[in-house]
Parts: sequence; C-alpha cells; structure tokens
Amino acid sequence: MTPTPDEASASAELLVEEAGRRAKAAAPIIAALPTSVKNDALHDIAEALLDQGDRILIANERDVLNAERARLAEPLIDRLHLTRSRLGAIADGVREVAAQADPVGEVLRGSRRPNGLVIQEIRVPLGVVGLIFESRPNITVDAFSLCLKAGNAAILRGGVDAMESNKAIVEVMRRAVQRRGIPEGALQLIESSHPSATERLMHLREYLDVLIPRGSMEMVRSVCEAATVPTVETGAGNCHTFVERTARFDMAADIAFNAKVQRPGMVNTMETLLVDRPIAAEFLPIIGPRMQAAGVELRGCEATREILRNVKPATEEDWYTEYLALILAVRVVENLDQAIDHISRYGSHNSEAIVTHDYFAARRFCERVDAAAVYVNASTRFTDGFEFGLGAELGISTQKLHRRGPMGLRSLTTWKWIVQGEGQLRD
Amino acid sequence: MTPTPDEASASAELLVEEAGRRAKAAAPIIAALPTSVKNDALHDIAEALLDQGDRILIANERDVLNAERARLAEPLIDRLHLTRSRLGAIADGVREVAAQADPVGEVLRGSRRPNGLVIQEIRVPLGVVGLIFESRPNITVDAFSLCLKAGNAAILRGGVDAMESNKAIVEVMRRAVQRRGIPEGALQLIESSHPSATERLMHLREYLDVLIPRGSMEMVRSVCEAATVPTVETGAGNCHTFVERTARFDMAADIAFNAKVQRPGMVNTMETLLVDRPIAAEFLPIIGPRMQAAGVELRGCEATREILRNVKPATEEDWYTEYLALILAVRVVENLDQAIDHISRYGSHNSEAIVTHDYFAARRFCERVDAAAVYVNASTRFTDGFEFGLGAELGISTQKLHRRGPMGLRSLTTWKWIVQGEGQLRD
Repeated sequence: MTPTPDEASASAELLVEEAGRRAKAAAPIIAALPTSVKNDALHDIAEALLDQGDRILIANERDVLNAERARLAEPLIDRLHLTRSRLGAIADGVREVAAQADPVGEVLRGSRRPNGLVIQEIRVPLGVVGLIFESRPNITVDAFSLCLKAGNAAILRGGVDAMESNKAIVEVMRRAVQRRGIPEGALQLIESSHPSATERLMHLREYLDVLIPRGSMEMVRSVCEAATVPTVETGAGNCHTFVERTARFDMAADIAFNAKVQRPGMVNTMETLLVDRPIAAEFLPIIGPRMQAAGVELRGCEATREILRNVKPATEEDWYTEYLALILAVRVVENLDQAIDHISRYGSHNSEAIVTHDYFAARRFCERVDAAAVYVNASTRFTDGFEFGLGAELGISTQKLHRRGPMGLRSLTTWKWIVQGEGQLRD
Repeated sequence: MTPTPDEASASAELLVEEAGRRAKAAAPIIAALPTSVKNDALHDIAEALLDQGDRILIANERDVLNAERARLAEPLIDRLHLTRSRLGAIADGVREVAAQADPVGEVLRGSRRPNGLVIQEIRVPLGVVGLIFESRPNITVDAFSLCLKAGNAAILRGGVDAMESNKAIVEVMRRAVQRRGIPEGALQLIESSHPSATERLMHLREYLDVLIPRGSMEMVRSVCEAATVPTVETGAGNCHTFVERTARFDMAADIAFNAKVQRPGMVNTMETLLVDRPIAAEFLPIIGPRMQAAGVELRGCEATREILRNVKPATEEDWYTEYLALILAVRVVENLDQAIDHISRYGSHNSEAIVTHDYFAARRFCERVDAAAVYVNASTRFTDGFEFGLGAELGISTQKLHRRGPMGLRSLTTWKWIVQGEGQLRD
C-alpha cells in the first residue's frame, strides 16, 4: 500500500529523529578519538573511495541519467557528475584533511586566578553537525572528513538528484572506518527526499548543535530564517571590484577580468565593477571590450553607457543581483566613499576588492568595507580555505557570529572552560 | 484619540525600525573610534551616572512604586531598585570596562602565501548589537559600555517595569558621550512596551547583527527559537555537583553548600547533588542536615530517602528543573559514568562540578561532561566574567556557536580577512 501524505511525512520525520539520536549517541565517542585513529580512518576513506570507485561511479551514473531525463541544466549535471579523476581529487582532499593539525584539545588561554583556581579554555568538538546541501556528491566526502577530524558526528541531507551517489559514498566511507572503532552513528545520511525531512532537521534542537546550509542563496536564506537550530549562513556573494583613480590600468583590468571570468559560477566572482569617475573615460574602454570579447554581458549606469557601446542599462535590481554567470554590472562612482557606500548598500559581505596605488585609499577601504574578505590589488576569487592556507572548508561564512570567511576545521569546534581547584568557594 | 490595536502595533514596529536605521548608520563611526576616545567616553559615563544620580534615582523610584502597586515579587523589586551605592558600583563597572584592552584591531593570525598575497585575520566590531533583557537597570549601563568599547552600536529592549529608570539612564549616558563625537545612534532604547516591538526586533535582519536575550530560561528560549536575527543563547543553568567516592567529605560538603546557598537565584547555582553510591550513607548525613538547617528543601531519589529524613521524593521533572531557589534535588548514582550520564541527560550545559581525589576520575569528568564550564574541586558559582579574569560580561553563553561561557568584550566582535596583493590573479 502507498502511504498517505501524512504517513510519508511522519515517517520522514521519524527517520531524521532516529538519525539525530544515533549521531548524538556517537558524538562523545568520536570526540574522544585519538588523532592517530582519526587520521588512519581518513586514509582508509581515501583508499576506499578509489578501491570501490566503480560502485560509486555506477550509482552516480544512475543519478546523471535521471538528471538528464529530468532535463536538469547542464552546469548542474556537470556538478553532479563523478569521474575517476574527480574521485581521485576527492580522495586527495581527504588525505589533506588527515595532514592538517587536529584542532581538538588546543588550549586557547589559561591563567591562575588570585584565589588559586586554574582556568583554561580548551577547544572541543561541536558535537553533532548537520549539513543541508545541493547535488554535489563531493561535499558528502568533504563534510564527513572535516567533521570526523574535528571530532563531530555528521548528519547529511544532500540534494535529491545525488541520492544514489550519496548512498554509495556513505556506504563506502562507513565501511572504511568501521574497523577503526568509529561508530555507525558518526555519519548519517537522510535517505528520504520528503520535504518534512528537511523541515524536521531544521528544528532538531535536541540532537543538533549546528546546521550549515550550503547551496543557492535562496536555499541558505530560507534555512537560516526558518531553523530553530543554530545555523551558519554560507555562500551569498554579490562581490565588487573598485578601480580607484590611482590604479594601474593593466593591473586593474587583469584583476577585474580574473574576478569575473575565471570561474563565473563561484560565489566570490565579481558581480559589479565600480569605476572611479576621473578615470572612467580612459579605463572603461580598456576593460569593457575585453569583457565583451570573453562573452560577458555588460549592464551599466548612465555614465558607463555614455562611454561604452553595447551596454544594457542597469536597473536598481542589477546592483543587488548575484548573477553567477557571464553578466557584469558596471557603475561609475564619484569617489572612494561613494564606492564604499555602494558596497555597503548592495553587497553581501563576502569578498570586496579595491585596485589602487594610494596607501590611504587602501587603508580606508579595508577599514570601512564590512565583508568577510577585503582585498587590495588582488582578485576576489582567492576567498577559499586552501588559498587562505586554512585547508579544506565547508563553505564561506558570510555571517558575523562564530566564524567569518572560509569554514575549516576550527569552525567545526567550540570551547569549554576547565576550572581546577582545591576546594575554592565563592564569597 | 486612542490608537487602535493595529495602529499601536504598527507604530511600535516603526519605532524599532527607526532605531535599527539609526544604529546601523552610527555603527561605522563607532567602529572607527580610537581607543582613547572610547575610554574617555566611558569615564564620562561613569562620572555622569554619579553626578546625575538624583535624576536616575527619582525615575527609578517611580518604577519601584509602580512595581509595588503591581505587587511584583520581592526579589524582582530588589533587582529593579537602585540606590546611591548601587549606582556607585555600576559606575565602577564602567571604569573597569575602560581599563580593559580594546579588542578591536587585534591581528589574530596572518601569513604570506606562496603567491605573495599577505593575508591577515583582524578582529572587528560586530556592528549593531541588540539586547532583550528584564528589569535590571544595571544591564542598561553594562550593555552600552561593553558595546561601545567593542565598537558596536546598541539597541536595548529593557523590561517594561524598568522603563523610567532606563529612559533616565540612557538620557544621561547619551549626553555624557555626545561631546566625544559619539553619534546618538550608538545607543537606542526601545521606549515602547508593545509586544510588537520585541517581535519586530527579533526579525530586524536588515539592521541587527546579533540579538542577545538575557533573562529567564523561558524568555531566552522563546527569543532564540523565534528570532531570524542570529542570537546567542544565554543563561539557563541546571547545574550539578558530583561527590565522587574518593572526595574529602569536608571539602565536598563546603563546595556543595556554597554552590547551593551562596546566592541561590543565580544561574550557576547547583540544582542537583549527585552522590556516589559507596559514600552515600556516610556523606548524605553530613550535607543533608546542613542544607536543611540553611532552609534548603531536599527532594531525593529513593536511595537518598532511605538515608535521610524529611526528604520529599524527587520526580523525573525535578531532575530537569532549574529551581533558582532554596530547593535541591539529590540523587545517589552507581558510579562516575552514571553521574556523567545524568548530567548529559538533564543538564543545561552551563556549569558542572566533580569533587574527587582521583586523578583519572577528574580527567574523565572534564573530558566527558559537555558544558561551558567544568569544575574539579570548586564551587560552580565561579562561572562569571570577573572570576574568570575576562572582565564584565553580557551573560553566560550556553550555546556552542560563537562564544561559550562568559560573554565579555571579545564576544562582541567578529573577524575580517584583509588580503593585500600586487596584482595576484587566480589560475
């Protein structure tokens, strides 16, 4: 018998609760694992992903076929698709996590108080980390390796389009770590595609310590607004490059071009180019045609359109838009402060750049622009855990609490105060 | 004409939005203030609180009279009541904030990447901090001094019972800092007592960077669950003391007594005493009568009631309860692990203590108990910013994200990555 809608919803919720219960029971065991055991387990995962690659690729083939039948957009299918060489890169990523320092147990500060209490702040795992993400099966591996290394249990809710791939990957990873004494509860995949599963996960306060949504801006926003579990907002990126009047034109053009064209689907791609009024007539004719030659559609303010041809008028809406495509909004601003104001008003606090020769302009831009990463004379495309020297990450946090910028191993930890006494009482 | 309910609600919402707008406009100015200006302003505040103390005390008198007429409970009226000497202590607190190091601008880490990019992580203000609290006018002063020192604008929603006091205090503080060039927007008091004001504040994502509720467990929970603005959960404290079999009885009794009786209304007060089975018959007759003599009502498990007289039976409900009163639940546990299990199941992750002589018991307790502060051989009453050497705080965070334990100046900051290049492009 087919379950009724209510039954399907209730069973999806039960599935999530059961996953939560298992993860919570596993969490203290994972938290206490020695670093060497975690690293050995990570190497086992990397090996298993290659050894049992065929199994994963066959499952992935089913997902890709379904996606093609459902006529998913080409870039989405590309993100979903796994190959031997992609699996190799994913396994390398796991080995890199094994090579990173274990964040757990770090003593952050400590002191002996006048009354003799010895107080220390220690880094400890978060406990149970939930992740909601779209159809990129590599995230399944990244998430589990980072969570495991940081001593957490993970509950993953991947995209429905990647369900077969995710099941196969989770199965392979679980088996790989079993012989290291890592409990099954360490890695839970929500195998229901029912919306009630996501809904329940967002309110699983009794088991989840944090929920990280990773994907489109709309998905991330809606999870962060609806969830009662603490969340970390990742990913929106309406990024700007401001070419200040003292900038070297060749450097400015290279930076702007790289920031837009190198990989336009990434969140740290430039979406609006701001050009200082005094150089607009000279600089725009350099960068404009170069962008257009690379297939970039330009949408400009009036001043831009007086200087450049084939530029559509930009609307207020454009200044707010994260295109994630070969489209660029262009605006001529009166000066540095107007550029900063524009960024404050329309930006998403991800990555913002200035190109300049002026020391004081650089300093003011860095101080006044409120973003996870502020660049002077470099492409915004560098906002990334590896590029920052932090290693693999679970996304770029654009919120201000807990962690800002690339979310690596440390972001998956919290703190604990240990107070050692010999009978101290409070007066 | 009296406004209709809808008009009153809409006007409360407008008030909050206007406060948000002003605070957000003021935030970059406050963020850029030199440390010396902030410290001078704090000293001005301390002085003004004393110089214009009469005005504040008269306003407070009105609040107290209203509270008495409304027959508020005695401890609540006591918390609301200001005196010259309390004002003096509050002013001293402001001077202590001035004496603390400025957290803004601290370079947390930095490196030169192989490609020549110089990357630094810098501590910066959060921006706009919202605080919802109950009727303790001293929090109005603490909150503004901490926010100002950490470079933030503050929006305060104090208890309705303290409205007159808060208005007077805010007026005095605002005037005091005006001549230092600190904009009015730095400190916004929501002067409406309409519930729509709180409701709007919880969803003011466009202006608020964080919302901190401080007060009863119910209030904090409801704000954290309903708000779409990022929140920090403070305050619940169902704290335990576990007297392990190797504990010295006199030390254990002193610690337990202090943890329960020294100030029973505080969140880090012990609510349940756990006693190791092998010593129960000997230890309970020491601590039980001492507690009862101090007016503490005991509620025990069966084993406890077999040993002690005049002990009510404890229900499952009792293990969950934060009494904040002279009531103590008592349970005999089989061993260390059962004590840890009890704390995991019923505790609120605030402050937990073990009294023991056994090195390995202490170590296991510290590792396995998941709480903001874990104590060995000391009273849980020490969880406090000053006692930990962190200075004044805005509450004790019991959540795991962003900050855990006393929330001092650093908790009111976030981070920014500054990336300096010379034309670097991403491959």
